[in-house]
Amino acid sequence: MLTVFEALELVAQSALPLAARSVPLGEALGTRLAEAIVSDIDSPPFDKSMLDGYAIDVQDSSPNRQIVEEVIAGGVPHHSVKPGTTIRVMTGAPMPEGANAVVKHEDTSLMSDTTVKLPDTLPHEGYGIFLRGSSFHAGEEVLPAGKRLRSIDLALLAEVGCGKVEVVPHPRVAVLATGNELVECGESLAPGQIRNSNSPMLVAALREVGATPVELGIARDDPGELKSAIETGLEADVLLITGGVSAGVMDLVPGILTELGVTKVFHKVRMKPGKPLWYGVRELAGHRTLVFGLPGNPVSTLVSFVLFVKPSLTALGGAAFEQSPALRGTLTTSAIHRGGRPTYHPCQLGQAMDASLSVRPLPWRGSADLAALTRANGLIVLPAGDYELTVGTAVEVMRL
Amino acid sequence: MLTVFEALELVAQSALPLAARSVPLGEALGTRLAEAIVSDIDSPPFDKSMLDGYAIDVQDSSPNRQIVEEVIAGGVPHHSVKPGTTIRVMTGAPMPEGANAVVKHEDTSLMSDTTVKLPDTLPHEGYGIFLRGSSFHAGEEVLPAGKRLRSIDLALLAEVGCGKVEVVPHPRVAVLATGNELVECGESLAPGQIRNSNSPMLVAALREVGATPVELGIARDDPGELKSAIETGLEADVLLITGGVSAGVMDLVPGILTELGVTKVFHKVRMKPGKPLWYGVRELAGHRTLVFGLPGNPVSTLVSFVLFVKPSLTALGGAAFEQSPALRGTLTTSAIHRGGRPTYHPCQLGQAMDASLSVRPLPWRGSADLAALTRANGLIVLPAGDYELTVGTAVEVMRL
Repeated sequence: MLTVFEALELVAQSALPLAARSVPLGEALGTRLAEAIVSDIDSPPFDKSMLDGYAIDVQDSSPNRQIVEEVIAGGVPHHSVKPGTTIRVMTGAPMPEGANAVVKHEDTSLMSDTTVKLPDTLPHEGYGIFLRGSSFHAGEEVLPAGKRLRSIDLALLAEVGCGKVEVVPHPRVAVLATGNELVECGESLAPGQIRNSNSPMLVAALREVGATPVELGIARDDPGELKSAIETGLEADVLLITGGVSAGVMDLVPGILTELGVTKVFHKVRMKPGKPLWYGVRELAGHRTLVFGLPGNPVSTLVSFVLFVKPSLTALGGAAFEQSPALRGTLTTSAIHRGGRPTYHPCQLGQAMDASLSVRPLPWRGSADLAALTRANGLIVLPAGDYELTVGTAVEVMRL
Repeated sequence: MLTVFEALELVAQSALPLAARSVPLGEALGTRLAEAIVSDIDSPPFDKSMLDGYAIDVQDSSPNRQIVEEVIAGGVPHHSVKPGTTIRVMTGAPMPEGANAVVKHEDTSLMSDTTVKLPDTLPHEGYGIFLRGSSFHAGEEVLPAGKRLRSIDLALLAEVGCGKVEVVPHPRVAVLATGNELVECGESLAPGQIRNSNSPMLVAALREVGATPVELGIARDDPGELKSAIETGLEADVLLITGGVSAGVMDLVPGILTELGVTKVFHKVRMKPGKPLWYGVRELAGHRTLVFGLPGNPVSTLVSFVLFVKPSLTALGGAAFEQSPALRGTLTTSAIHRGGRPTYHPCQLGQAMDASLSVRPLPWRGSADLAALTRANGLIVLPAGDYELTVGTAVEVMRL
């Protein structure tokens, strides 16, 4: 059986960046730039007043100045500042010719509607002016290719006029629950039935990481129904099938996947929970789909999602294939491990002001115990073997 | 002028949780539960096989058993297990009466279509069975009121049949850019104009924190246009007005806000950037709107958003009014501070494997230097005063 590391290596080989495409700025949040952004403007595009006040020539020593014009932000000066005159400017207004500083409104007093008295000490040359191009110049690279776009980056893209931008898009991920025992969560349970909890969980987990979920609902263990649902799912970039890895169903699913051109890469990984994980890839007409068969119970599904699907989505989105950064924390209660598979055990992570992590393992009744996982905000990675870890031991943890 | 702390106290007094309402599970991600969730079912709802194999009575010593039935997940057994017989069960299937363990399929061999040979050593009683109610029982509280709903919590809600759930909803936040100098980012610039970068930034920043943005576009500095846009914005839970805090415009905006029933709480905060921040509240017909007048330049707007708007949104969403946790990190290059206002200076935070933070201040030309902020992932909080901090000094930082 593959180790987690070996299985991750195999997934990484097929989880390659999606083809870049142009998206409107409003859809670019969280994607990565497919090209460097070069500004076509100076920023600011003109010498700009940073204050409400009076544009003056500091060489001019006249104590009173005639106000020849008022320029608001968005306006344009029609006059220049000549000896004995000034132009009133608002924050954001372009500076008039002949001026080399701005006197704050608060430091002046109006003598008449058209005359202002300046303070005895004038500001130094350049005061109150944000010079054209002082943030960056036309032709300058302002954002590098590969950068993940946050809100502040969108502001810069907007400033330089990128209404559309070439990015590696968010992966589209289809979610298909399989199993005759499943009913939707609004329905009541007949004997032998349980509610479909995997689909709402995965759809939400995909939203949390910025992927675009495509909900395919529940497919019964029926060849026609499964084939039709899987065929639709394979149009996405990633297809997550839950509950299809027990023998009864997998009698049907692998056959259908093969029929539809999906090549199995591996089945089963040495880990707990999540051992039955199935992984395959389809290449068809230039479109690649990664297919994950996730275990039916939601704890195993979530752990498999965190370990394998999340880094794949990051890689499809144009970044390195990387797990969430492995962190180290200190156990605040002891932990016991038994068994030949490494265990991903739910825990509570606490963070001190110096950012160091404390780790409290939570009581957990195994892979069917979903309620325990709702109280966790992390997973301790406990290596295979039979041992006890004492309080204060450093352990590897992942955030949930 | 108020300190940041004093201003935060005032905002906290008016940023109260929104009224709870019922939302479909698919819209609940990231909200907080307004009520404790009590399960109406045992979990699992029946004794369930955790394996593909044969349901047996471990007291029965017959080496070969007659297969009387096969039960798949979603099915129901019609027979019970009697001496000399077994029932084939799939993972997830309900256990038949009379059985108290499951023998793994791999440990058996078929003698005929209807007879299976069991291994010499049978599993212990209870093996392979997940007992009804062993995760939780009907009537048990499975999620506490106030819990922020993550994907795993949605799985539990789905399991217990909550297709709708009573939550404190995501705040609706209107975004209005003001100023004659602004054009949308798809347009080319006439003299004196700049592109509206604040709106796309704020809309994205709102999405990042899970709030629901309402885009109101650009309003010119015209009383009618401003009043109409602000009136629409006041229907939201929060109204963010950008660029309306310079004197020219605020001549219009405060008047209009007063006319529309908004009470000013404060104007200006001792901080850099972001000093011109304006804050007020409207209560009308049982609906409260928080109104933030954010500075026109995007750096000041983002810092004001992080410091004041973000914790308000968290509080409106039913959590404590709290800034992003203040972290401490260690300077990797020296930092100089000048001036009487605390400065929020862009920096690069690096995280070691033990989670400790390194802090590298970035070159920054002040509040108009948006490009520098796109290279930052944090802000150093530098207290007021004239001083130099050497390499290795511990400093307070916030993540961006």
